[in-house]
Amino acid sequence: MTLAPKAVVLLSGGLDSTTTLAIAKYAGFACYALTLQYGQRHAIEIDAARRIAQAMAVVEHTIVPIDLRQFGGSALTSDLPVPKDRPLDEMSHGIPSTYVPARNTIFLSFALAWAEVLGASDICLGVNALDYSGYPDCRPEYIAVFETLANLATKAGVEGRTFKIHTPLIALSKAEIIRRGIELGVDFGLTTSCYDPTPAGLACGRCDACLLRLKGFAENQMSDPRRYAV
Amino acid sequence: MTLAPKAVVLLSGGLDSTTTLAIAKYAGFACYALTLQYGQRHAIEIDAARRIAQAMAVVEHTIVPIDLRQFGGSALTSDLPVPKDRPLDEMSHGIPSTYVPARNTIFLSFALAWAEVLGASDICLGVNALDYSGYPDCRPEYIAVFETLANLATKAGVEGRTFKIHTPLIALSKAEIIRRGIELGVDFGLTTSCYDPTPAGLACGRCDACLLRLKGFAENQMSDPRRYAV
Repeated sequence: MTLAPKAVVLLSGGLDSTTTLAIAKYAGFACYALTLQYGQRHAIEIDAARRIAQAMAVVEHTIVPIDLRQFGGSALTSDLPVPKDRPLDEMSHGIPSTYVPARNTIFLSFALAWAEVLGASDICLGVNALDYSGYPDCRPEYIAVFETLANLATKAGVEGRTFKIHTPLIALSKAEIIRRGIELGVDFGLTTSCYDPTPAGLACGRCDACLLRLKGFAENQMSDPRRYAV
Repeated sequence: MTLAPKAVVLLSGGLDSTTTLAIAKYAGFACYALTLQYGQRHAIEIDAARRIAQAMAVVEHTIVPIDLRQFGGSALTSDLPVPKDRPLDEMSHGIPSTYVPARNTIFLSFALAWAEVLGASDICLGVNALDYSGYPDCRPEYIAVFETLANLATKAGVEGRTFKIHTPLIALSKAEIIRRGIELGVDFGLTTSCYDPTPAGLACGRCDACLLRLKGFAENQMSDPRRYAV
């Protein structure tokens, strides 16, 4: 029986959400990991999330299947090609084709539903606005409005519970996130960030997610334990 | 080829969402109906939604399966009993056990995703704050914040599209909604409102949804074409 406050942590199986989980555990939360299986091209991240949830001993791990391929509109949920070999300065301008319409709003809505049922006030999300400013639903102003919404939307909010959306990585660089994860004992070999892995599960090394991850490890003079195809 | 602006209309198969669809059609929108199959006890409403979408000739009808029984927390998504025979003044106080945590936030998130992909700016939702003030996610202040969120959350919002959440029933009584639907030619015999229908598909006549619906028809001196068990 734990007296720790409960938190719902959105866990994709990637580097950022895994570090967020480690931070939430370190902060003393009893962590409930939530993974959305949304029809993403890189569905191997679901297995990664499962392994991470087990290794990090979360209280409970729920995988919710939803099918965003019904709508498409993204390189991650359709047959559009995933951009490769983009220079970093190109990545920092505009919104890439890997943007998934309303994804974080859908994810946070499910997290809110589970948090309300669990009696949790805290939801943790590994968004990051610095290295990858392209996604509109990773910005602090978006998160602030979702927090307002959460408190208006729910019975718990009406009855006085105050939901808080924690985004501990929002202002960190990828190198800083990796450093924080290492300090907290995260095994990044369990994580996968690649948008377009090979059938054998190797990371492509060329999509935006791989390039930013590799840069983050390089800036820490570390090698990435993830296995790459190139 | 239509030049009408597109709208995503959330269609549950009930009286309110069907009237909302009729209003959206009458307003000149090319309507895309979206139904969430969320593990609700009254899953017969999915078939109703299918028949209504066909009868009202929507451009496209998408049914998205999600499983809110994974979280429970509501009489509609668990084995909790549905309240019966409640006096109307009791219904107007407090939030009933048929409240589904974060349901409208989840529904609107999916509608937003589809609207963004379709190139639609308009989302229509049949919430009603008057007859049934219990649900926090049916209030105008909640809808206003979701609208703000939609514009921050999306690529389309960042690029200048302005999403609008239309709630044409929000200030109407059930009797007024029925009258409006009749004026617009809605066949309420296709709709189902009951939270706890019999295995044969008859409405129970005793849950809050049935009682409010029956009262609305009675106030219009009309009989409800829905078939009831009592």
